[in-house]
Amino acid sequence: MTTSDGNRAEIIQRLLKPQSIAIVGASDKLDKVNGRPLKHLMDKGYAGRILPVNPKYEQIEGHDCYPTISDLPEIPDLTIIALPARFVADALVALGEKGGKAAVIFSSGFGETGAEGQAMETQLQEISSRFGMCVMGPNCLGFINAFEKVYATFSQYADGATGDGPIAFVTQSGAFGTAIASLVRQRGLGLGYFINTGNQADLDFSELMMGIVEDPRIKVAAGYLEGVKDGPALVRLAKRCRELGKPLILTKVGRMESGARAAASHTGALAMSDAVFDAVIRQYGVIRARNEEQMLDIMEAFCQPRRPAGNRVGIATQSGGAGVMMADRAEEVGLEIPQLGLETQQRILDVMPEYGAAGNPVDVTGQFVARPELLSESVVAMLDDPDVDIAIVWLQLMTAHVDKLVNIFADIQTRTKKPFFVCWVAAPQAALEALRNMGIPTYTAGERSIEAAAALIRYSESASKTDDSVMLTGNGEASVGNGNLPAGALDSVSAVDWLTRAGIPMAPVSLATSEDSAVELWQRTGGPVVLKVESPDILHKTEIGGVVLNLNGESEIRQAYNLLVERARNAHPKADLKGILVQPMSSGHVELVVGVSHDPVFGMIVMVGLGGILVEVLKDVTFRHAPFDRNEAARMLDELKTGVVLDGVRGKPAVDRGKIADLLSRLSVWAASMEGRLSELDLNPVLVSEDGPVVVDCVMILDASRQDVAA
Amino acid sequence: MTTSDGNRAEIIQRLLKPQSIAIVGASDKLDKVNGRPLKHLMDKGYAGRILPVNPKYEQIEGHDCYPTISDLPEIPDLTIIALPARFVADALVALGEKGGKAAVIFSSGFGETGAEGQAMETQLQEISSRFGMCVMGPNCLGFINAFEKVYATFSQYADGATGDGPIAFVTQSGAFGTAIASLVRQRGLGLGYFINTGNQADLDFSELMMGIVEDPRIKVAAGYLEGVKDGPALVRLAKRCRELGKPLILTKVGRMESGARAAASHTGALAMSDAVFDAVIRQYGVIRARNEEQMLDIMEAFCQPRRPAGNRVGIATQSGGAGVMMADRAEEVGLEIPQLGLETQQRILDVMPEYGAAGNPVDVTGQFVARPELLSESVVAMLDDPDVDIAIVWLQLMTAHVDKLVNIFADIQTRTKKPFFVCWVAAPQAALEALRNMGIPTYTAGERSIEAAAALIRYSESASKTDDSVMLTGNGEASVGNGNLPAGALDSVSAVDWLTRAGIPMAPVSLATSEDSAVELWQRTGGPVVLKVESPDILHKTEIGGVVLNLNGESEIRQAYNLLVERARNAHPKADLKGILVQPMSSGHVELVVGVSHDPVFGMIVMVGLGGILVEVLKDVTFRHAPFDRNEAARMLDELKTGVVLDGVRGKPAVDRGKIADLLSRLSVWAASMEGRLSELDLNPVLVSEDGPVVVDCVMILDASRQDVAA
Repeated sequence: MTTSDGNRAEIIQRLLKPQSIAIVGASDKLDKVNGRPLKHLMDKGYAGRILPVNPKYEQIEGHDCYPTISDLPEIPDLTIIALPARFVADALVALGEKGGKAAVIFSSGFGETGAEGQAMETQLQEISSRFGMCVMGPNCLGFINAFEKVYATFSQYADGATGDGPIAFVTQSGAFGTAIASLVRQRGLGLGYFINTGNQADLDFSELMMGIVEDPRIKVAAGYLEGVKDGPALVRLAKRCRELGKPLILTKVGRMESGARAAASHTGALAMSDAVFDAVIRQYGVIRARNEEQMLDIMEAFCQPRRPAGNRVGIATQSGGAGVMMADRAEEVGLEIPQLGLETQQRILDVMPEYGAAGNPVDVTGQFVARPELLSESVVAMLDDPDVDIAIVWLQLMTAHVDKLVNIFADIQTRTKKPFFVCWVAAPQAALEALRNMGIPTYTAGERSIEAAAALIRYSESASKTDDSVMLTGNGEASVGNGNLPAGALDSVSAVDWLTRAGIPMAPVSLATSEDSAVELWQRTGGPVVLKVESPDILHKTEIGGVVLNLNGESEIRQAYNLLVERARNAHPKADLKGILVQPMSSGHVELVVGVSHDPVFGMIVMVGLGGILVEVLKDVTFRHAPFDRNEAARMLDELKTGVVLDGVRGKPAVDRGKIADLLSRLSVWAASMEGRLSELDLNPVLVSEDGPVVVDCVMILDASRQDVAA
Repeated sequence: MTTSDGNRAEIIQRLLKPQSIAIVGASDKLDKVNGRPLKHLMDKGYAGRILPVNPKYEQIEGHDCYPTISDLPEIPDLTIIALPARFVADALVALGEKGGKAAVIFSSGFGETGAEGQAMETQLQEISSRFGMCVMGPNCLGFINAFEKVYATFSQYADGATGDGPIAFVTQSGAFGTAIASLVRQRGLGLGYFINTGNQADLDFSELMMGIVEDPRIKVAAGYLEGVKDGPALVRLAKRCRELGKPLILTKVGRMESGARAAASHTGALAMSDAVFDAVIRQYGVIRARNEEQMLDIMEAFCQPRRPAGNRVGIATQSGGAGVMMADRAEEVGLEIPQLGLETQQRILDVMPEYGAAGNPVDVTGQFVARPELLSESVVAMLDDPDVDIAIVWLQLMTAHVDKLVNIFADIQTRTKKPFFVCWVAAPQAALEALRNMGIPTYTAGERSIEAAAALIRYSESASKTDDSVMLTGNGEASVGNGNLPAGALDSVSAVDWLTRAGIPMAPVSLATSEDSAVELWQRTGGPVVLKVESPDILHKTEIGGVVLNLNGESEIRQAYNLLVERARNAHPKADLKGILVQPMSSGHVELVVGVSHDPVFGMIVMVGLGGILVEVLKDVTFRHAPFDRNEAARMLDELKTGVVLDGVRGKPAVDRGKIADLLSRLSVWAASMEGRLSELDLNPVLVSEDGPVVVDCVMILDASRQDVAA
């Protein structure tokens, strides 16, 4: 990207809303890849100028056809390149020389085919960069802007109805993306934009979506990803979506390690840790859908404007069992099924037949066919209850009563301002269409309706609650003055000193270089101490028996000192043994592991997990992108599956989650300031007592090359 | 049940395939509950005799109508009772006096409405029992036998086409069950039987399904449950289905505790532990579907006759990303995505365009539209690979190419004997219908196709692998001779002795009633010992500090003896202190908890989990119905989420899973022999070293009332 971001943003807007579109390699065979854009533009009524380019034709379908790009009578806002791969670079140069700034390259045969194709793709990047162009593709289906009727695509999706709508959907995969777009159409939700980014040689998902979310006609942003190269761009996009109050829904494949490998080989994307991706996007309010069905379900929930104020769900069904299944799922995903207030119960009992139940879920039975008010009054009463934030009505089949039921739901909709969903199993098609036309999210399976409600609720929750106190007071200056440190493991005394200045509660540590100094340091401590081997070449001290705990007495200290020197020499004869660390004994009944690492996609990442056997057996850790505030840190602790250990198990007292969150937030501020200089930091163990956490051991590794970059 | 089971089985067969059907309370208003059965029987061509009963009519729709049951000209094989609740009991008596043996009661207003209704329901049970009748309902939609065109129902489902088919579906819920039946119809799978059991006053899910699975026209048994009262009947059904090689697919709501409560209150079922239900049905080869969508998906997989020989899945897609998503899900559910053999890869590369990939998943791209052999040859090559057991082909949309694709799949089907599925996202309806008519399981979402494949694979796996060596040699006789023991906690020495004779590796234990005898017992042990308080009133010894470890020396023993006596007296002054137990120290680096309990639904249940913090924080335990063999016990260990601890973590050696499985299997045989006498057994901790497990502490509680029952 040689052009400024602002300039690129303008070019992207012209690309998405062009006044003129050139089609290089246009064909009069309108069913072929290079014929379909022209057909769609004409059929669907594009109002701008269409400029086919192909020396074989004088005209195509009444449009003057130009032999070469340089022959074009104007600089097109958008140029579609539909040529065999080997001709694409020359066409792009010609476009650049003409002054064209935006292109969509359909052609395949680039990075996705191997090294040779990758070299050709790199060439495209160089050309677009040289001319300051924005290029979509190669190896993509192009895009649709349904508002301005721009059909710069050969996707099968364009063959059907493509009415506009509030959803922008950007997909890396053409085939899967086309399927998802078709599912959106099947639901009648309406795609305003549909973009397939393909190989993303230049324009990637985040930059394109950034150009779309500002469009006031767009209410919901959704993406299908196979990998992410530019993490910061995705973070910027997520933050912007949050500012705009527009949900960003992402499905990314490669959740498992083997899947991630396959995805990386498929798209040339970096093999990023899915766990990091998952945590970081959650941190910035992105909603992750696990697959295409869930993406559709969540899209539908957000296409209507109502948002729940909390996580309390009222459920009304005509089947007790369906209610139980939905309540089960709600509990699993952390939603509440509240008791209804007495007044609400009375209102429901007033209309309820004897064999219904006024609890939550409310079983209204099938009798509402004869008495519609049974359903409408029950659901309105439920939604009027101050302890209910959103309601879901479950019903089934009822083929003969569609009109009656649609009227009931229309009535409910006017009588409440709270969101409510319909779940209609084995629904007649007419019912689904009518309800969706009314803007009522409608599902065909109970568990799926609960999951969609959960996404709506989580999104509302994530928009609130920030506590910037740590981040605003800041402690980044603690990293100043250490710019000239060499690469590799930093000595423990310096590392502890540095982190202490950054506000991290480190157990103090001193270096003894002789028996006598060890004794002196112990005496100064005035209590039991730990002795540890100190060497940049021995980072995992415990593996060589390089730690001796709980020493209190001169002869003990001397013996331990000599023992450790001996062990270090035996295990690593060539290690640079700096001495023996002396540290007062720390205590704490909860053991944490905390770390900082440099993720190749997102940058500085902070990790926390329960230590000991729990982290080893369960890999129960969670991540955040640095920096983050204390509330975000507290949410990390909430995410730990074994987090209950913090609240006291096996007779142990609870520890203060706030103090741990404080440590994590401060560490994240420091970590962010170390971007480009820190390679890795392990704080392990962090012992937590009722007084708070203390870091007992740390390994800090600085990065030479990154230090140069940042300098 | 006063009639013998054999007699009941005959009555149930007549009920399901009646030559004559009486309709008590029949109406000429054919759209009403009491008119609909007649309408359906006539419309759908029931060949037997239809006998309406209602004093208001001479005839209904050309059928002679009889004023009362006693006026009927014959004893009907089946009688439908469609009367208000208050008239049902009298009708049932009249039927009994007439000699009728089988009835379906539609009427609601019984157990589901509260205590008064429950009393009326109990009366129905008494009447049916007195006359040796089999009664379906009350509060049910009745049933359909589509083969013999028996429509003893008023379900909405019967309004549409109800062609027969290989699935028997029995549901406790009417509304939810109707929805599921309609979904089965939408998929074109075909229901042979559709039964709603309602309140199950007499006939329950298991007994009815037992009468159906023998029908050779039925290939797949499926059920929707809200609760289970008769666990042994369900176990018998599951065993019979396994013998017949017919899958039994169950969806049960109430997975979470709150849901289970709601389900119990809804159906009057026992609030059984869902974890026990889940484990026990898995033990007997039942497939659990988590919701109605998954039930349909799994039904569809089993409706075709091909079964995979193993868990290795080949995937072919036209989208790399879809392949990754499916591979991810496969890994999550324990399926393998094998590397393809070199020969297979070569065969695929022979037909593959340059931009495809011959790995697994195979990305055949969208080019197969132009070159059908690309798809057919790739998939056949994959299925020919000896390392592939089942294949799934993923594609999308392709509205214009349905016939071509259906022909490709027909070709593949004839060229392989292995099962394969099609996953077609945003599929044209014609494609779904054509493929399903060909018996190819067809899905519309990738993850769902993987889950259905997993069910097919797990079922094939569960049919094999039994190791009855422990169960056949038996050790039930170990329980003989203890019949007269009193209820309550058994003393430790007797309990250890008893379990030792049953083949359980118990740490030996002796009771000291004086300091001197404690010393003598220590001396006899010849090494370090543990001393523990022994009292039937102090079952949780550690809570009062009632255990002292690692004693070795006379004065230590004496001091510890007195300390424990003191502690017991202080903590429980009125406790019956029998003495102090002396036990040699045991060691083991893995700690298990093992237990036996009496489940109200299923009977004797064995539990195992990892001990210590893992069981406390994670509740990671699993269950089986006693007795079971060593292979089943090994599967219990496989199910533990923290089972990796058994294989050695944190530098510890692995332990022998086989020896733990042996303990569990032996314990299960003993537990089964104790049905009716054992209330509870806790073996905690069980320490496992490289030498195997040893039970260090046990609490056995006998049950007086149940002892009487068994006597």
